[in-house]
Amino acid sequence: MGIESVEAAIRDIKDFPKPGIVFKDITPILQSGELFKIVTDELCSPYEKNVPDYIVAVESRGFIFGSAMAYKLGCGIIPVRKKGKLPYTTYEATYDLEYGTATVEMHVDALKPGDEVILIDDLLATGGTAGAAVRLIEQLDATITSVDFLIELAFLNGRANLAEYPIRSLITVD
Amino acid sequence: MGIESVEAAIRDIKDFPKPGIVFKDITPILQSGELFKIVTDELCSPYEKNVPDYIVAVESRGFIFGSAMAYKLGCGIIPVRKKGKLPYTTYEATYDLEYGTATVEMHVDALKPGDEVILIDDLLATGGTAGAAVRLIEQLDATITSVDFLIELAFLNGRANLAEYPIRSLITVD
Repeated sequence: MGIESVEAAIRDIKDFPKPGIVFKDITPILQSGELFKIVTDELCSPYEKNVPDYIVAVESRGFIFGSAMAYKLGCGIIPVRKKGKLPYTTYEATYDLEYGTATVEMHVDALKPGDEVILIDDLLATGGTAGAAVRLIEQLDATITSVDFLIELAFLNGRANLAEYPIRSLITVD
Repeated sequence: MGIESVEAAIRDIKDFPKPGIVFKDITPILQSGELFKIVTDELCSPYEKNVPDYIVAVESRGFIFGSAMAYKLGCGIIPVRKKGKLPYTTYEATYDLEYGTATVEMHVDALKPGDEVILIDDLLATGGTAGAAVRLIEQLDATITSVDFLIELAFLNGRANLAEYPIRSLITVD
């Protein structure tokens, strides 16, 4: 089995979270120990010989892939969380939603200048969340080696929000 | 290094999320690849010879430990999420907070009758969330082998909410 089995396991949920949207449900991937291992190993494969200092993972599905990666690679994991969830002093970054804005945060002591990090989330849609996470990492002067996703919704052109960095997605939906 | 190093890394944050509460900040543990590995290996140690069918993990810090465990053990991971986050048909369970209630959900096809699962979250406080997650697992007639936590705040007596099941916590705060 390979990444095509992972892709086949994604379940399309129509009209979630609202009418007109087809949601990519990844829980069938997580439910299979075999598929979850394929995804984690594939996400880690470029980094096994040059392990980053940290995996930076976006709440909350990004945690699921990011922590398995960090465990396999033997590096730390830094959480990017929704506003109000991290207990220590934070930097925050705000991004636009269709209606309104959202804010994510990272602890101010999460990274040191020059740290090499991989940013991970499950899904690249418009790139708003990942773009905000990138700004938090930049604020701490860490180096982003790659921005990785399990799934990229290419028709939303989220790459435009992340143009300065290498982007890797295991599965592309056109 | 062992679990005492993990315990030493926990950072107490006073008055978070509100006055009078001392929050146990686990991000310094996550930040250290070595400590994160110690925690994951210790959480997995009872199950390596008798691997469960699934790790059931509670959003969202539970995802961080649960997915590393699932990767190491080679089993699937089932998310328990806050209401409105899971896209497919769900069961839900509501529990009391100090003021009001909260609801968690699990997909109706997440588990089959007789599946053996470990429930994991980072912290056992009053046991409200874990108790609700237990009810979801019971609703699907799966078997809970153990309910595991990184940290247990023993003075809140959360075990009373989980009395039917074996409970394991790596670190106990009296």
